[in-house]
Amino acid sequence: MTAEMEAVRLHETGGPQSLRVDRIPMPAAGEGEVLVRLRAAALNHRDLFITQGLYPNIRMPVTVGADGAGEIEAVGAGSFEGAVGDEVVIDPMLGWGDDPRVWDTATANILGMPRDGTFARYVAVPSANVYRKPEQLSMEEAAAIPLAGLTAYRAIFTRGALARGETVLITGVGGGVATFILLFAKHAGARAIVTSSSDEKLERAKALGADLAINYKTTPEWAKIVRSAGPVDLVVDSSGGETLRKALDVVRPGGRIAIYGGTNGDATIKLFPLFWKHVTISGTSMGSPQDFAAMLERFSKGLRPVLDRVFSLQDAAAAMQHLASADQFGKVVLRID
Amino acid sequence: MTAEMEAVRLHETGGPQSLRVDRIPMPAAGEGEVLVRLRAAALNHRDLFITQGLYPNIRMPVTVGADGAGEIEAVGAGSFEGAVGDEVVIDPMLGWGDDPRVWDTATANILGMPRDGTFARYVAVPSANVYRKPEQLSMEEAAAIPLAGLTAYRAIFTRGALARGETVLITGVGGGVATFILLFAKHAGARAIVTSSSDEKLERAKALGADLAINYKTTPEWAKIVRSAGPVDLVVDSSGGETLRKALDVVRPGGRIAIYGGTNGDATIKLFPLFWKHVTISGTSMGSPQDFAAMLERFSKGLRPVLDRVFSLQDAAAAMQHLASADQFGKVVLRID
Repeated sequence: MTAEMEAVRLHETGGPQSLRVDRIPMPAAGEGEVLVRLRAAALNHRDLFITQGLYPNIRMPVTVGADGAGEIEAVGAGSFEGAVGDEVVIDPMLGWGDDPRVWDTATANILGMPRDGTFARYVAVPSANVYRKPEQLSMEEAAAIPLAGLTAYRAIFTRGALARGETVLITGVGGGVATFILLFAKHAGARAIVTSSSDEKLERAKALGADLAINYKTTPEWAKIVRSAGPVDLVVDSSGGETLRKALDVVRPGGRIAIYGGTNGDATIKLFPLFWKHVTISGTSMGSPQDFAAMLERFSKGLRPVLDRVFSLQDAAAAMQHLASADQFGKVVLRID
Repeated sequence: MTAEMEAVRLHETGGPQSLRVDRIPMPAAGEGEVLVRLRAAALNHRDLFITQGLYPNIRMPVTVGADGAGEIEAVGAGSFEGAVGDEVVIDPMLGWGDDPRVWDTATANILGMPRDGTFARYVAVPSANVYRKPEQLSMEEAAAIPLAGLTAYRAIFTRGALARGETVLITGVGGGVATFILLFAKHAGARAIVTSSSDEKLERAKALGADLAINYKTTPEWAKIVRSAGPVDLVVDSSGGETLRKALDVVRPGGRIAIYGGTNGDATIKLFPLFWKHVTISGTSMGSPQDFAAMLERFSKGLRPVLDRVFSLQDAAAAMQHLASADQFGKVVLRID
C-alpha cells in the first residue's frame, strides 16, 4: 500500500480559491532523483498566474509550487553526492541544459508545472537540483530564496554585470525578485535607487539600505530625480511599458538595462538613446545551475532573505490571495509541519 | 599670404543643393595634429542629414565630410609615429576617450561637424586619428571605409559578438554600413541572411556571398522564412520600428540584436520574447580607437570595400543627391585630384 501525503493541488483554473488540499500518493525518487521531505515552501507570482490560467499548456491536476527546502528522505538510482537526512534547498529550474547563456527550450521547465511542485509534504526532483541549505538560514528562509533569488542574481550579475561602486535603479521594489536585487546590490557594494507606489515599501527598502527611494505615483517627475542623482549604471525592471522607455532616458551612456519580466506587455522605446548612448538591454528569466550555485554562495556569507509572512501549508490559498494583493514586502512562505 | 584650397561647404541647411565649392584658407596642423593632403573622400548619410539640418547644433559654414584618405602633408607639434608622405586613412571618431564601452560625451564628435571635414583638398586632424592605409587598397577604397566600416565592425563584433559558423540577419542590405556588415560576416566565416526592398540589391548581396536574400516588400512573410532558415544568432538593424519587433521574433533563444540606428524613430517591442528567450539588444554607434584598428586589420587580409560610384570633389552635391536616392549599393566616393 502506497503512503499518502497532503498536497496543494490545482484541478481547474480560477485563481487561488481553486486550490485544494488533497491527499495523494507520496511520490517516489526515480533514477537520478531524490525525494525531499519538505519543511517549507514559498510563493511566486508564477504560481498565482498558473492558478489564474495565465500560462500556456497548463496540465491539471498539478501540485503547484516552485520553491522548497527540506531534508533528503530517499535517493533514487544513480549518483548523488549527498545523503539521506541532508538539509537541502531546491533549484526549481529543471533541464536548463549545457549553455550558460540560455536554457535548452527542448528540456527546460520550472518545478510546479507541469511537474508536481513543492506545496506538499514531499517532492521528487532531479538530484542535480538539490543544494546544501546554507547553515545559518532557517528552513523558511531557505525556501524563500530559490526562484526569486535565482532570477535576481542572474538579472543583476550574470546579465546586468553590476560591479562594486556602481549605481542600480530597481523599479517596483517590494516584490520578491526586486527585494532580492536590493539585497544583492547592497551586499555587492553598489548604490541602490528604488521606486514603488507605496511609501511603506519605500521605507522598508530604505531600512534594507536603499540609498534613494522614490514614489513614482506621487512623483511624476521621478525619472528626472533619478537622472540628477545618477549616473545610473544599471536599471533592473520587470514592468515594461512606460518604465522601459524612461529607463533608456535615465541610464548613463554605456549603461545597461536588465529586463526580467514584462507584465505590462508591449513597450514602445525610443531608438535614439539606445544606439547613441550604446545601451545594452538584456532579457533574462530564471537562471543556470552556475547562477544558482553562485547565488546560494551569497547566503553563506551572512545575507538573509526578507520574509513577509509565514502561512501553514493548509492555508496556501489564503497565502496566495495575500500575494495577489501586492501588499507584501519580501517573500510569502508556507511552513510544512 | 595663406595658401587657399577648394572645399565643399554648407552655408545654410536645405539639402545637398545647398553645398557650395568655396575657396578658403588651407588649414594648419595644430599641436598634436597632422595636416592630410586628401586624395579621396566618401559620403555617409550623416553628411546628407547635416545638409538637411537634421542634426542638433549645426554650426555653419562648415566643410562637410567624415571619411577621407590621403598623404601626410605636415606634422604639428607633439609626437607622431608617422612621417610626411605616409599614406593614411582617417578615423572620423574624434575624442572617443578612454572607455571602450562608450564615447566620452564631453569630448566625442565626428569629423565634418562641427570640425571641418574631408570634402576638401586638405584637412587637419588629431594625429591619433590617422592610420596607415592598407597597402593593397586604392585611395578611393581606403576613403570608403572609415565611418561605415567602423560602425559595422563594432555592431557585429564588439557589440554583436558574431562568431565563425553563426548566422547573422542583416536588414536593409545595400546601405553603406549593411554592406560592410555582409563583407565582415562572410570574411569571419558566418552565414548571412539579408533583406532589402530591391531585387537588384539582393542579387548584388548574393554575389558578395549572402546565403539567403529576401525581398521584405514583396515577401510579407519574410520573418517566417528567416525563422525556418535559422537559427539566427544575431540580427543587425538600423531601421527600428516594425523590424525590431520582428527581430525579437526571429532571433534564436540566447541570441543578440545589434541596433546601429533608428531612422524610423520609436519601436514597439514585445517584452515576452525579450526576457523569455534571454535576448540581448545592444545599441551601438561609431566605434572606439580599438575598434577602428581591429577593423582596418581586416582590410590588410584581402578584404576590399564595395564602391558604388566615384564622383569628383566638385560634384559633391550630385554625389549626395545620388546617396539620397537610396539606389546605391556600397559606398559613394569623391576623387580629389
